[in-house]
Amino acid sequence: MARIVMKFGGTSMAGIERIRHVADRVRREAEAGNQVAVVVSAMAGETDRLVQLCREAAALYDPREYDVVVASGEQVTSGLLAITLQGMGIKARSYMGWQLPIRASGHVSALIEEIDVDVLERVFAEDGIAVIPGFQGVTGEGALATLGRGGSDTSAVALAVAMKADRCDIYTDVDGVYTTDPRIVPKARKLDLVTYEEMLELASVGAKVLQTRSVGLAMRFNLPLQVLSSFEDRPGTMIVSEDALEGKQMERNVVTGIAHDLNEARVTLAGLPDRPGAVAAVFAPLAAANINVDMIVQSVARAGEPSDLTFTVPTASLPHTVAELERVRGAVGFTDLLTDTDVVKVSAVGVGMRSNAGIAAKMFDTLAERGINILAITTSEIKVSVLIPEDYTELAVRVLHTAFGLDARPEQAA
Amino acid sequence: MARIVMKFGGTSMAGIERIRHVADRVRREAEAGNQVAVVVSAMAGETDRLVQLCREAAALYDPREYDVVVASGEQVTSGLLAITLQGMGIKARSYMGWQLPIRASGHVSALIEEIDVDVLERVFAEDGIAVIPGFQGVTGEGALATLGRGGSDTSAVALAVAMKADRCDIYTDVDGVYTTDPRIVPKARKLDLVTYEEMLELASVGAKVLQTRSVGLAMRFNLPLQVLSSFEDRPGTMIVSEDALEGKQMERNVVTGIAHDLNEARVTLAGLPDRPGAVAAVFAPLAAANINVDMIVQSVARAGEPSDLTFTVPTASLPHTVAELERVRGAVGFTDLLTDTDVVKVSAVGVGMRSNAGIAAKMFDTLAERGINILAITTSEIKVSVLIPEDYTELAVRVLHTAFGLDARPEQAA
Repeated sequence: MARIVMKFGGTSMAGIERIRHVADRVRREAEAGNQVAVVVSAMAGETDRLVQLCREAAALYDPREYDVVVASGEQVTSGLLAITLQGMGIKARSYMGWQLPIRASGHVSALIEEIDVDVLERVFAEDGIAVIPGFQGVTGEGALATLGRGGSDTSAVALAVAMKADRCDIYTDVDGVYTTDPRIVPKARKLDLVTYEEMLELASVGAKVLQTRSVGLAMRFNLPLQVLSSFEDRPGTMIVSEDALEGKQMERNVVTGIAHDLNEARVTLAGLPDRPGAVAAVFAPLAAANINVDMIVQSVARAGEPSDLTFTVPTASLPHTVAELERVRGAVGFTDLLTDTDVVKVSAVGVGMRSNAGIAAKMFDTLAERGINILAITTSEIKVSVLIPEDYTELAVRVLHTAFGLDARPEQAA
Repeated sequence: MARIVMKFGGTSMAGIERIRHVADRVRREAEAGNQVAVVVSAMAGETDRLVQLCREAAALYDPREYDVVVASGEQVTSGLLAITLQGMGIKARSYMGWQLPIRASGHVSALIEEIDVDVLERVFAEDGIAVIPGFQGVTGEGALATLGRGGSDTSAVALAVAMKADRCDIYTDVDGVYTTDPRIVPKARKLDLVTYEEMLELASVGAKVLQTRSVGLAMRFNLPLQVLSSFEDRPGTMIVSEDALEGKQMERNVVTGIAHDLNEARVTLAGLPDRPGAVAAVFAPLAAANINVDMIVQSVARAGEPSDLTFTVPTASLPHTVAELERVRGAVGFTDLLTDTDVVKVSAVGVGMRSNAGIAAKMFDTLAERGINILAITTSEIKVSVLIPEDYTELAVRVLHTAFGLDARPEQAA
């Protein structure tokens, strides 16, 4: 007997027929003698629809009320899955985030603080199945909170950690983690094993299989995480620690995958005065507003002369970013605020990279050969990312995938 | 300064443009110096969509999980109205039923037990506006509960009573209560005043302006209730006590209105044994299942011989009714169970009827003249109802409206 969290994404929950299919999968795990908690997303498209309604209601919507609106999508699917499981004769009940409770702090991208598992232990003791809406929690003041887009993955992992689960299975519309997006590169290969670190970088740069936070959380508690298809019956990708990798894959590529992220917007402040604290005066209000700033490039100017500052933020944060910057414009003293959403971040990721200084150079050469202009660069121990014009997305991903030896031989292709 | 509850129905909340219009109305009441709580329905069509999903998930869905699913519609609109009001610079916040809390017992058609107004008093003290989802509450065990279709009216009235409001205004897609459905009878007239008792009968027989329970509750606490259009700026219909009517309308018609209700299903049990307790054995399990039985007709048979029993239930309760009856079939011993949903209940309503024994006779004559077959009859102090085949709905309503002198003169027509 194992204790398992099964998480199903929006595509898996889109409509009653698919929910019935999900219920079948859940039943199989339960009938195998496992203790099962199920975490569900809203139906595909529903959260987008709700977010759009908030935006139409007011350009700068109240985060608290936004959470009230968008938390409803998962409420619906968790109730429907409970009904469907009951219809199959399975003892199932839904528990909202505020009912368990799942304590969270903040709004729109709240952090989970604590999950009370008393109710779940009672459910398991009575051979029941708990269905829990992902993406939502409740604040200390008793307000609804949501965890940010893709937050259901984090709900599932946090729940698995809290209930000391043996495994967290993330069912989705792809059958695993690939070396890159197979829609762009048909020769992309499915990976059997990736490390938490690699997955973190792949997720954070746009391989939208798992929410970044969920991987970080699983890594912190060394929770075995599996990504697999909810539509097909075959093994997925296991996400493990680097230790667990030892001896399993002798000939691993230095680069594990190429990821891209269209959800970046470039902000340029022109004519920023050369004054101590000028850059801090730009980023402090953004940090206070919980806006994640990613790639930062400052043009080098002669001492005492104004310079340009370029950085990227998530596209969704752009209106807030612009509003915050306009608010401090007088104090900071820049002359122009330019924004550009037609950019993409392309990244090469791999744990082997730590001992390979040549990766960045090879990446720049490969892109330069195709005449692709690099707008910004950022690197980490296991990643090199470049910001390029959006039009070059597919080309850049394809040439890098080939250059780093990731293309499948014909018999391996997806 | 008055304390007002404003309630907006689904048509008024259907889309951001309409929600903005609602927010305008709310602003006007607030700017006039009133303390305002707003109760909202789900967007038009949303509750139907959610109910349909539950039905598809399982024919006999769990009432508890049904409530989880359908309560979400009002959650969305209350958040959106709060955002819209804030966007206009008004201090507004949403409070879910479980947050106030609005205590309720039961599921699917739960009863409100108690509303805690501490939070609301604080909101009013700070010149804020509270937006509250209608239709929902929370049980003693902390589960979501919904109040039954149209329950938002009851939420609004219960809230008005709890917060000692001066008035409860129900904004809807019609501009008041009419002598009958104006879509059927263009000569229908809008009533300026109706009594709680008349409104109760009109609501319970299908004039779907207000939920029956809400009128009963307003009557019990003598709360002034107003039905008015959310789209047009003109007086609606005031619903008052019979005392308040005195001296206001000298020449009131004996019959105030003609209502019809298509939401009735006829059930016939054939071959019911002539045995003491046989009828009780039929109705006891239905009562236990919270199914409302309305018109009852038992055929007269010779002593000791089986008879037929016919009654009506709400169409929505028909599957449950049939399931309950099949369960007790052996014990009760009837031979056949027949159901028919192609029926309509047509009613003549009026407080003046108490002193007019001739109303029923006139009604039967009028229908007989047109060859309309009466399947069942029920009367109350201020109402006579007949069950007839659905095909005759419009004809019956029209001839009765004319027969009881309700047709508007040309210059009065709606």
